[in-house]
Amino acid sequence: MPDMPVRMLFGPGPSDVAPSVLEAMARPIMGHLDPAFVELLDDVARMLREIFRTANEVTFAVSGTGSAGMEMALVNLLEPGDRAIVCVAGVFGQRLAEIARRCGAQVDEVVAEWGSPVPDAAVREALDRGPAKIVALVHAETSTGMRQPVERIARDAREHGALVVLDAVTSLAGIPVSVDEWGVDVCYSGTQKCLSVPPGLSPITFSTRAMDAARARREPVRSWYLDVTLITRYWGADRVYHHTAPISMLYALHEGLRLVLDEGLEARWERHERLGGELQAALVEMGFDLLAEEGFRLPQLTAAAVPSGVDERAARGRLLDEYGIEVGGGLGVFAGRAWRIGLMGESCREDKLERLLAAILAVTQ
Amino acid sequence: MPDMPVRMLFGPGPSDVAPSVLEAMARPIMGHLDPAFVELLDDVARMLREIFRTANEVTFAVSGTGSAGMEMALVNLLEPGDRAIVCVAGVFGQRLAEIARRCGAQVDEVVAEWGSPVPDAAVREALDRGPAKIVALVHAETSTGMRQPVERIARDAREHGALVVLDAVTSLAGIPVSVDEWGVDVCYSGTQKCLSVPPGLSPITFSTRAMDAARARREPVRSWYLDVTLITRYWGADRVYHHTAPISMLYALHEGLRLVLDEGLEARWERHERLGGELQAALVEMGFDLLAEEGFRLPQLTAAAVPSGVDERAARGRLLDEYGIEVGGGLGVFAGRAWRIGLMGESCREDKLERLLAAILAVTQ
Repeated sequence: MPDMPVRMLFGPGPSDVAPSVLEAMARPIMGHLDPAFVELLDDVARMLREIFRTANEVTFAVSGTGSAGMEMALVNLLEPGDRAIVCVAGVFGQRLAEIARRCGAQVDEVVAEWGSPVPDAAVREALDRGPAKIVALVHAETSTGMRQPVERIARDAREHGALVVLDAVTSLAGIPVSVDEWGVDVCYSGTQKCLSVPPGLSPITFSTRAMDAARARREPVRSWYLDVTLITRYWGADRVYHHTAPISMLYALHEGLRLVLDEGLEARWERHERLGGELQAALVEMGFDLLAEEGFRLPQLTAAAVPSGVDERAARGRLLDEYGIEVGGGLGVFAGRAWRIGLMGESCREDKLERLLAAILAVTQ
Repeated sequence: MPDMPVRMLFGPGPSDVAPSVLEAMARPIMGHLDPAFVELLDDVARMLREIFRTANEVTFAVSGTGSAGMEMALVNLLEPGDRAIVCVAGVFGQRLAEIARRCGAQVDEVVAEWGSPVPDAAVREALDRGPAKIVALVHAETSTGMRQPVERIARDAREHGALVVLDAVTSLAGIPVSVDEWGVDVCYSGTQKCLSVPPGLSPITFSTRAMDAARARREPVRSWYLDVTLITRYWGADRVYHHTAPISMLYALHEGLRLVLDEGLEARWERHERLGGELQAALVEMGFDLLAEEGFRLPQLTAAAVPSGVDERAARGRLLDEYGIEVGGGLGVFAGRAWRIGLMGESCREDKLERLLAAILAVTQ
């Protein structure tokens, strides 16, 4: 393999990876049915339950990236004709709606302006209009840096008999996520954000209600690869072969989860909260406009319009070429005028933030 | 991460991984849109074309295991009501049929006894019965160790206007695969077999005819994650974000492909042919029955009934516990009475074969 330039990753993911996680990935591999390996899977599931704050038996890692987790959540719950209420306030809400449509669902989008959360009341109105199979929402909208309040929407959805699907790709281990307390039925994440593991797996958890719904389907799940009732026969006690698990990635996830629990969830949330706040204050001082509504800003992912007069593409190129620093460009309506800056997991460190701010100052002033 | 026992992998996959591939995987990661990383993707695509023996522009690695590649092939080509002719002579042919059904296709299974190839003539009869959108077949049936002849079936299928889907999960880089010469339209593989890269990616290639068919669909692909027209916008010149590529796995694949091309495909085929033959001769001498029909045996994957009087499960357990050697159990109709022994990629070495044979002798005599 050619030598690759060394980067500091402050984009919307992937984030920097701890050396011990990289080392875990370089261990010699073993078989996916080896008794020692399936024990490791049990460990991964146990640690994921702790981090999702759930007692759900069906908790595992999808053999694909965060978007595969999104697809797994929807494809198992939705059947043709089902009504799906989807909260849309950015690219990842749109993606939820798009996948739900491909499942054959009648999708009812509850839309908010980019940067603002979807209001509880609007979701309640949609629920009052008629029965829905699911309500799906994005906790941390990576395209805008907006934090979507979840608890009230989840409670209303359950009271109306709908299952709650929560996208926690960018939130898990960065800000509080509490699957059982909030009454979330399916919650999925990605490894390459606040968990700081390389991309390639999607942690996911299904409540008993969600599994009952998956088992009560009239039609088979449209995806064989993502059929949760088949996959749980491998991750569960049966250990029946479904597909070959991505061994090395699971080594990495195991070590990454261990680091998260070693630090402690509260300490990790506090670190993200504090440094994210520092970043946002500094950006405002440098003339950036924060794009998410005040009170609903994610500390771990900041979308900010670059100061007027700054060529965003050129400045971003200089950050990469001269400082080895990656930040993300704007997505969707923010493309060409904003940056998305991640301070996630291993990238969210005091000394790294200092270097990031110095570099941003140098390329924008 | 806990210390894991060291294994020699002679199961049906994963196979042993070369140290330089493990090292590649442990490199610090970078962003999936980083100019240096997308150059690496171009390299991967170029090397895959060489190994698939194709000029297909659309050649890349699916962000999932071999079964995700299988699903990607079918889900992009098949629409509800399409007729799919599927060759079934083992578990992986059955899986093709199952996924095709979930795509809404009318599946016409052409069945052969386990261990025997599907006869050309039977496929021709199915083609003569009426138009089919695809003919799908498994080149190396991992459940039986059978090598399916491809060329004649592919030619007949094309003459009847059907697209040819070839499962090369266990064949690619172990025995000759020649996508363009054979007229195959979609061919997919897995990383953890004869490529000797950890599981997690599925190399795949689409012909122009296959891409035309995918673009001419009446309905959107049922899977957003596996929609080839979206993914090629990332792997192609546009570099439009679709999902976050599994960076570390792609580092590993890059290095694994480099090793394959360094050795040379012909030399690699010869190595598998020679050592596989030695293994099979030795197994027969030890009282095993080879389950694939003579003349259609894969050198890289041997299914063999254990000698009478040998408790297959106990003997397999001893191989693992006492010798650190993994072989696979039987699948489907062969469960409980056969082993599946892989000599793939890095596991297919003279010295390793000697250790394997000595251990098998010790636990079965």
